[in-house]
Amino acid sequence: MPTLYQMWLSPFCRKVRLALKEKGVEVEMVTESVWERRPWFLGLNPAGEVPVLHEDDGTVVAGSGVICEYLEENTPSPSLINGSPAQKAEIRRLVDWFDRKFNVEVTENLIGEKVLKRFLGLGTPSSEAIRAGKTNIKHHMEYITYLIERRSWLAGEHMSLADLSAAAHISCIDYIDDVPWGDYPEAKNWYARIKSRPSFRSLLAETVPAMPPPKHYADLDF
Amino acid sequence: MPTLYQMWLSPFCRKVRLALKEKGVEVEMVTESVWERRPWFLGLNPAGEVPVLHEDDGTVVAGSGVICEYLEENTPSPSLINGSPAQKAEIRRLVDWFDRKFNVEVTENLIGEKVLKRFLGLGTPSSEAIRAGKTNIKHHMEYITYLIERRSWLAGEHMSLADLSAAAHISCIDYIDDVPWGDYPEAKNWYARIKSRPSFRSLLAETVPAMPPPKHYADLDF
Repeated sequence: MPTLYQMWLSPFCRKVRLALKEKGVEVEMVTESVWERRPWFLGLNPAGEVPVLHEDDGTVVAGSGVICEYLEENTPSPSLINGSPAQKAEIRRLVDWFDRKFNVEVTENLIGEKVLKRFLGLGTPSSEAIRAGKTNIKHHMEYITYLIERRSWLAGEHMSLADLSAAAHISCIDYIDDVPWGDYPEAKNWYARIKSRPSFRSLLAETVPAMPPPKHYADLDF
Repeated sequence: MPTLYQMWLSPFCRKVRLALKEKGVEVEMVTESVWERRPWFLGLNPAGEVPVLHEDDGTVVAGSGVICEYLEENTPSPSLINGSPAQKAEIRRLVDWFDRKFNVEVTENLIGEKVLKRFLGLGTPSSEAIRAGKTNIKHHMEYITYLIERRSWLAGEHMSLADLSAAAHISCIDYIDDVPWGDYPEAKNWYARIKSRPSFRSLLAETVPAMPPPKHYADLDF
């Protein structure tokens, strides 16, 4: 069975875990404490980052974007990057939106400051960064609302990797109760739909030691 | 003819331009001053970033990674992401290495501080950032050396998108004469090979107003 090296509350690992489940690919999950910079793990991925997929034949696939393209080619059904060239470009554009823009503007400011800094003993969280994260997430919730008013799913009429990427980030922020759900009913409705998929179940059941999620986090009718 | 919205000294636009030339796809290039945030351009790409490829049929392909996957599907020959699933994963891993890791550690510290900040009147370049960029580039030159001692090209036996991505970033840094070529002869030899490809010609001929490149920049025997 392939091994997935991963970390809790990493949206990139969550996206890959969701894609694996949607495609029915089973993996053994191993938590890698990347800050320890284990030489063996650096041999697998010189960037020292998770996720890394290690196949039984020795193939190493490093990085969430790389793993998702690899899965799409090796296990094409069900497709998560589907449709015409223009539709595929739209899916990949939104994956990039969440993995780069949302990540820098929201995830790093909130998860980075509130969770990672505390956990790694890197000092007091920056209140300025947290404020920026809480302001920025509003623009992204508005953008999700804009998209979902026009389409069934974020990138079009079918659930795609764009939804998984967005939901992976948002589920991390929801774990620390920083998603302003009350102001964005359409976005909430979209998230409720994706959250109730079987692929989401194990993510919602997972808790970080000494840091329980809010009550609504795992509730499908939140 | 499709239009490519781009900016000078953007490694992401350079990567796409190289890929287009390698595949023989002609485009009309339009320089987009992204900081003006033109509503029409934001309609094309809500992220407000270049590169954006605008096809004659109205298809919009936004972002360098998205455009490269799109080109690979629509104009498969010559392939820039070629080989077995493991080889394709290795190419994409290295593209990500340069577009994310090299970009944050080197390009943003050097091009961002020395060129963009000055050009946009954003204040004095940070000497700390410039020092960090100059230290970080050494690790990347060592990594290129490590790869090229073992392979013909960065990701394997064939020239690939990994080489184009790396060369796009390095060509920007070379424009401001911050590549320590003297210490890395194998990396220099690899860059000389890629720089002499016809696809590189128009990049090397292009100059930024009031900021001429060093003499060796466009020289194929530098």
